[in-house]
Amino acid sequence: MKKIKVVTIGGGSSYTPELVEGFILRHRELPISELWLVDIEEGREKLEIVGALAKRMVEEAGVNMTIHLSYDRKEALKDADYVTTQMRVGQLQARILDERIPISHGMIGQETNGAGGMFKAFRTIPVILEIVKDMEELCPDAWLINFTNPAGMVTEAVLRYTNFKKVIGLCNVPFDMKHTFADMLELDPEEISMELSGVNHHVFVTDVYHKGASILDKVIDKYTEESEKALAMKNFEALSYSPEFLRGLGAIPCPYHNYYYFTEEQLNTQLEEFKTGTVRGEVVKKLEDELFELYKDQSLKVKPKQLEQRGGAHYSDAACSLIHSIHNNSCDIQYVNVRNNGAITNLPLDSAIEVACVITSDGPKPIAVGELNPKINGTIQTIKSFERMVCEAAVTGDYDLAVTALSSNPLCPSDALANRVVSELMEAHKDFLPQFHN
Amino acid sequence: MKKIKVVTIGGGSSYTPELVEGFILRHRELPISELWLVDIEEGREKLEIVGALAKRMVEEAGVNMTIHLSYDRKEALKDADYVTTQMRVGQLQARILDERIPISHGMIGQETNGAGGMFKAFRTIPVILEIVKDMEELCPDAWLINFTNPAGMVTEAVLRYTNFKKVIGLCNVPFDMKHTFADMLELDPEEISMELSGVNHHVFVTDVYHKGASILDKVIDKYTEESEKALAMKNFEALSYSPEFLRGLGAIPCPYHNYYYFTEEQLNTQLEEFKTGTVRGEVVKKLEDELFELYKDQSLKVKPKQLEQRGGAHYSDAACSLIHSIHNNSCDIQYVNVRNNGAITNLPLDSAIEVACVITSDGPKPIAVGELNPKINGTIQTIKSFERMVCEAAVTGDYDLAVTALSSNPLCPSDALANRVVSELMEAHKDFLPQFHN
Amino acid sequence: MKKIKVVTIGGGSSYTPELVEGFILRHRELPISELWLVDIEEGREKLEIVGALAKRMVEEAGVNMTIHLSYDRKEALKDADYVTTQMRVGQLQARILDERIPISHGMIGQETNGAGGMFKAFRTIPVILEIVKDMEELCPDAWLINFTNPAGMVTEAVLRYTNFKKVIGLCNVPFDMKHTFADMLELDPEEISMELSGVNHHVFVTDVYHKGASILDKVIDKYTEESEKALAMKNFEALSYSPEFLRGLGAIPCPYHNYYYFTEEQLNTQLEEFKTGTVRGEVVKKLEDELFELYKDQSLKVKPKQLEQRGGAHYSDAACSLIHSIHNNSCDIQYVNVRNNGAITNLPLDSAIEVACVITSDGPKPIAVGELNPKINGTIQTIKSFERMVCEAAVTGDYDLAVTALSSNPLCPSDALANRVVSELMEAHKDFLPQFHN
Amino acid sequence: MKKIKVVTIGGGSSYTPELVEGFILRHRELPISELWLVDIEEGREKLEIVGALAKRMVEEAGVNMTIHLSYDRKEALKDADYVTTQMRVGQLQARILDERIPISHGMIGQETNGAGGMFKAFRTIPVILEIVKDMEELCPDAWLINFTNPAGMVTEAVLRYTNFKKVIGLCNVPFDMKHTFADMLELDPEEISMELSGVNHHVFVTDVYHKGASILDKVIDKYTEESEKALAMKNFEALSYSPEFLRGLGAIPCPYHNYYYFTEEQLNTQLEEFKTGTVRGEVVKKLEDELFELYKDQSLKVKPKQLEQRGGAHYSDAACSLIHSIHNNSCDIQYVNVRNNGAITNLPLDSAIEVACVITSDGPKPIAVGELNPKINGTIQTIKSFERMVCEAAVTGDYDLAVTALSSNPLCPSDALANRVVSELMEAHKDFLPQFHN
Repeated sequence: MKKIKVVTIGGGSSYTPELVEGFILRHRELPISELWLVDIEEGREKLEIVGALAKRMVEEAGVNMTIHLSYDRKEALKDADYVTTQMRVGQLQARILDERIPISHGMIGQETNGAGGMFKAFRTIPVILEIVKDMEELCPDAWLINFTNPAGMVTEAVLRYTNFKKVIGLCNVPFDMKHTFADMLELDPEEISMELSGVNHHVFVTDVYHKGASILDKVIDKYTEESEKALAMKNFEALSYSPEFLRGLGAIPCPYHNYYYFTEEQLNTQLEEFKTGTVRGEVVKKLEDELFELYKDQSLKVKPKQLEQRGGAHYSDAACSLIHSIHNNSCDIQYVNVRNNGAITNLPLDSAIEVACVITSDGPKPIAVGELNPKINGTIQTIKSFERMVCEAAVTGDYDLAVTALSSNPLCPSDALANRVVSELMEAHKDFLPQFHN
Repeated sequence: MKKIKVVTIGGGSSYTPELVEGFILRHRELPISELWLVDIEEGREKLEIVGALAKRMVEEAGVNMTIHLSYDRKEALKDADYVTTQMRVGQLQARILDERIPISHGMIGQETNGAGGMFKAFRTIPVILEIVKDMEELCPDAWLINFTNPAGMVTEAVLRYTNFKKVIGLCNVPFDMKHTFADMLELDPEEISMELSGVNHHVFVTDVYHKGASILDKVIDKYTEESEKALAMKNFEALSYSPEFLRGLGAIPCPYHNYYYFTEEQLNTQLEEFKTGTVRGEVVKKLEDELFELYKDQSLKVKPKQLEQRGGAHYSDAACSLIHSIHNNSCDIQYVNVRNNGAITNLPLDSAIEVACVITSDGPKPIAVGELNPKINGTIQTIKSFERMVCEAAVTGDYDLAVTALSSNPLCPSDALANRVVSELMEAHKDFLPQFHN
Repeated sequence: MKKIKVVTIGGGSSYTPELVEGFILRHRELPISELWLVDIEEGREKLEIVGALAKRMVEEAGVNMTIHLSYDRKEALKDADYVTTQMRVGQLQARILDERIPISHGMIGQETNGAGGMFKAFRTIPVILEIVKDMEELCPDAWLINFTNPAGMVTEAVLRYTNFKKVIGLCNVPFDMKHTFADMLELDPEEISMELSGVNHHVFVTDVYHKGASILDKVIDKYTEESEKALAMKNFEALSYSPEFLRGLGAIPCPYHNYYYFTEEQLNTQLEEFKTGTVRGEVVKKLEDELFELYKDQSLKVKPKQLEQRGGAHYSDAACSLIHSIHNNSCDIQYVNVRNNGAITNLPLDSAIEVACVITSDGPKPIAVGELNPKINGTIQTIKSFERMVCEAAVTGDYDLAVTALSSNPLCPSDALANRVVSELMEAHKDFLPQFHN
Repeated sequence: MKKIKVVTIGGGSSYTPELVEGFILRHRELPISELWLVDIEEGREKLEIVGALAKRMVEEAGVNMTIHLSYDRKEALKDADYVTTQMRVGQLQARILDERIPISHGMIGQETNGAGGMFKAFRTIPVILEIVKDMEELCPDAWLINFTNPAGMVTEAVLRYTNFKKVIGLCNVPFDMKHTFADMLELDPEEISMELSGVNHHVFVTDVYHKGASILDKVIDKYTEESEKALAMKNFEALSYSPEFLRGLGAIPCPYHNYYYFTEEQLNTQLEEFKTGTVRGEVVKKLEDELFELYKDQSLKVKPKQLEQRGGAHYSDAACSLIHSIHNNSCDIQYVNVRNNGAITNLPLDSAIEVACVITSDGPKPIAVGELNPKINGTIQTIKSFERMVCEAAVTGDYDLAVTALSSNPLCPSDALANRVVSELMEAHKDFLPQFHN
């Protein structure tokens, strides 16, 4: 039987135990023989802690999967079957800057949206493009499954600036939405399927089916009744939409849309957090420190419950599930980021979109949804256009384009502010942005 | 448990035993409680023979499914869950005219292509549109699964000239191609999947996967080596393509393409059959008479082997398989005719295409294949444009448009001939073409 | 020689003298024989003043064109060749509400953008659709040239909700931009041509040519140097873009974009105007009162200079120029609002766009510009989607859709505010919005 | 005043006197100072004859334009403003082979269609791509105006395989159609304009306007009455379409469509010509010899009438007219081959199409015509797809693709024949097809 080799770049992440658990639970049908956890030297301490936990988990479960720790990406990638990427260039400290600097100028500061998302893309894309170059040389048939944010832009960059086709961007938002609907209506999530349209972190559910019948109207009704529950996110608090708006929209926005429809209110919350040193990055840093303390405990041999507090919970599980379906040609439907290929007719053929796909051994195949309804078209186009500008600037190091991109973002209230915020973040992240500083 | 009611229009067809067998074999997972076989008065004799056999088959198998015979379509359609259509307007006599009249003018005469296909569409489309009207009234949530030929044009007409969305066109060609590839390469057909592009009876396989790896090149090589076997069809003999052509094409044409790439040679064969009274319709008529003789035998309680000699074998099985997957939300991939919805970006959004779909309880969802390669684009566009003209003429009764449509078809050698053949067929089928004769 | 009959609906407008002057100046090549000025009873006083002036102007010029005043639209439309529409449903009082109510909630209040533009569309579209119905009956071959704002949405509504094809939406913004470029670079405006992309009041100049050579870079440089001058508008003060933004954009935004890129700053200005009773509608009302005082002067026999202070100057001149080119098949390039027809590939085929057209006797033919660059795509898509929702709500009277539409507009800071502003404007304009109040 | 330098590659052509006459007649508004006639050594005799005539013509007319003869392309191209290409790679002898070889196999043999057109493209495209390379170096701002056939494919190749944008393909067919309509209806051709859709030598006139009113129905009626006259071509005899076909089509096919709708009949004519040594190339060779005899006459100082007998008459005049309009920014409508840019929505954005354009100093701008009607879509798509395959094969030297391309052409009756004809032509033209023979 063919052995399966998985390589996880950014292996020292606090999410790794979820990934390891996912592979253990699926081991019978997805017999991974080697899991390589790769990190950079600066991450050695974390990788050793997490790697040791991973080894204990595997031993405890009694599955036949060896864990390798490595600081040499090339060595690890050789003959890989699946490569997952979950690294964080600049670590949490960079995230905190992505959040605090925009907020200090009265602009939303968020990890994957607006100015923060743009700079995370600027730091991450060059690294991903190098990983792809290595993969083309060392494991050209492997799948690249990225869950480093901003996952949509990272996927876009690989599709547009390389010839590598086997890339999939992953997000837990669609998974969470499906489970939210199920909870609200007291249904089995396994019996629910959704029609999605949009791009990562900016996706709308345009229909919901239960056993083949549309239950969209019921979901909309529920949302207008108990939206606090419906919109619950771990990393920020969402405000309730008016019933008029939701009925007029005829679709369910993803949680991140709250930043766009409640910009002012969300900014006020962030300004409070800014003052008290509790912007999300700061909170997460604390959570993470606590997690690593837990992970050090030699008696811990399973994924600790506390990990589920993180906003990214289910990300790793989604990756395991995706790999499982590719390996087994499961032909089930999952919601991932792939090349459009015409599935949404008014977005570019060659752009990344987030959409329902059938997962085959030849990868995810997007299901055609046709033309975007005007009710959701404008905002999706705006974000996709923003993403394309960000990707181009990330590759070319064009400062002016970075300013134009941010000015075009709905979270940016003015051109002048765009210029100031770009300028300050550019300086703050200087070490990770060589393309802009030559 | 919810009961399932299936209605089969054209129930007196010789194919019905395959359908009944298909439902019997799947009864555990697809517990059909009522199967209504509907026909017109002129078909009473046949329906009674076939209906009696169906009842014996069900009894023999011991499944809990009642067989109803009916000559009242409206009575039958009430509260149906699935409606299959397999009627033949004008019966086999009309088919023989569709074949002999064009051949007599030196033009290919074929049931689903060229002049013959056009007139079959002219007879069938008005009837299908009436059935849809009845369904909208009596069973608006039922699926219409059509396998009356020309299945592509019938689907196109329903999509374009009604507001009824739940229509699926079915064909055995993709199924047969998959099995041919498996046979040639000695592989399990279950492990093979295909990428299809095109329209019914004019579809190309643009990729073939075995366990996730493309085996298209191997299939092309095999085709150039042993194409007689590869191209075997029950209803006509296909000629071998040159290796240069197939390699240049980089795709596998469906068997019916042989009429287009070998027009002259196929015409010569038909001229021979014309002289000897063995055009396909005449051969089939004989086969069918023999089948009905068999069916009368009270001791026959299963589908007779001889039925598999017909060109349409597997059609009914495909229908059972499709209904099964919808009912169970199987999410498997089947190859059917549905609304494009952008899956092929350079065909109209609202036209019928034949393509790989994932079959959900919400029906088949086409998988996006992107833009047609120029190597196959021209001929597919030509046939889709022909189909749209034919559908429009079928609905409006526009004689001039019928001439223009036929002139545009690659099987028609000249404008003048188009006019003569249309004129003669129009007269020959007068009774079934009221839209052209008012 | 064929006589030419022009009908101007909203003939009592203060702009009418410009129109009359335009026809007088072009009379040799555009020999209009009858100009009908039509208004409603409420506008009788104004129409009589303006009509009398028009008659004096014609007499003074000695051209052979009779002026008819009418309060019966149907009588006037009979056998018209050109119909221009410049009426203001609800008059200036309604405009003042369109501006003051949003501002009172902290949202931009503007005649053609955001909440104000939406309600102007709600009042105007039903009236325009009735005019089209009359034209279909009384002068089906006439051209409808609309310069009632929001001209883009009005054109969209006619294209999408009627079968009438001969509609053109007119705006003075492209004309003014061309003249601004010429002034800045000290060139003859006649030697300048532009490539435009977008929708009315949301258009970008994507290239500027002088004698066949692109001078876009020079224009951008000039803009960054002396943008106060460049952006001068009569109806609001525009702020200067940063050089980084403009260079990154690689295009020139139209003046109205200033509301989108400087939302906060523009809002602050409006809040001041709100307090002092000098929102634009209030200023214009005063200007208009003064103009009508002037018009009453029996010795005035030409268009008074003061009319050029209005923001809409050149609108009427553009209409004259357009009619002249249609009548003479001039084949010159003008910038108007027409059916897209594929000229901008990623906007709907059947939507109105503002673009360079060649003006033939068969009307304006849009010049194909291809795909929108991501730098301008997002914002144009957002506004076009907003426009389509507004048009649909204007026709159906769907309150929820009005809320969703406004929420989607970049000038609206939040969903909750959208609901409040829609609700208040809906009540304020009750008399002119029967479609929402049944 | 800026001097204008025009370079004509293939200057020794018998058409050159028409070009020279065209420039003389327009000299006041298009003051060309230098006309360089360039040819290869093998063409020295012809160039000297034609060049001497050109000099006599200019002298006789008394215009200030110097004629230069050159055998060094690079020397000539330096600082050119306009480059016209009219060379014939392989000379008339190659054309005769392009015609005779297919006919000998029972396939239409024609200079610009089918197998003949394909091989003319194979010989010409590599040379044109070299000319473009030289232009990029020596006169990057010059316009390339090509009238070497197959003009559509040559334009496609430049657009698709170079970064050079300033290319225009020219044909006399639209010009001739317009004049035919005018003649038939006894109207002034200057007052007629047409809507065109399609590709070079495969274009349909989809509407005809006289003073702004559609006269398409009248044109169709006339065509059905006196189509012999209507379809008159100098290089082949066209057969009459049936009234039913034309009415059904609702458009006017260009003369070359006759080969497609009357393939059999046209082939029979060609078989006769084949036997008598009078295929078109052979006839033309004789005509051309006679023309050169005339040109030698030192007393001849104007374009001789006999030149108008050639099928290509008006080609050169069209080039002069185009250059005139670019130079003067005339903004008149001409029918040329340019990048689609979305003007025809269901053809590729980046392909060459033949369409009505407005001619500005920035070149021809295609007027958007929207989606192709199914009545003409199929055949246009087929030819465009054929052209794209031919261009790809011309550049890559892919023999298999050449076979697939020819098999896809409606003039080719079968795959087997395609292979034989390609093989024989490939050998016959060996010296001019290095890309296929390495």
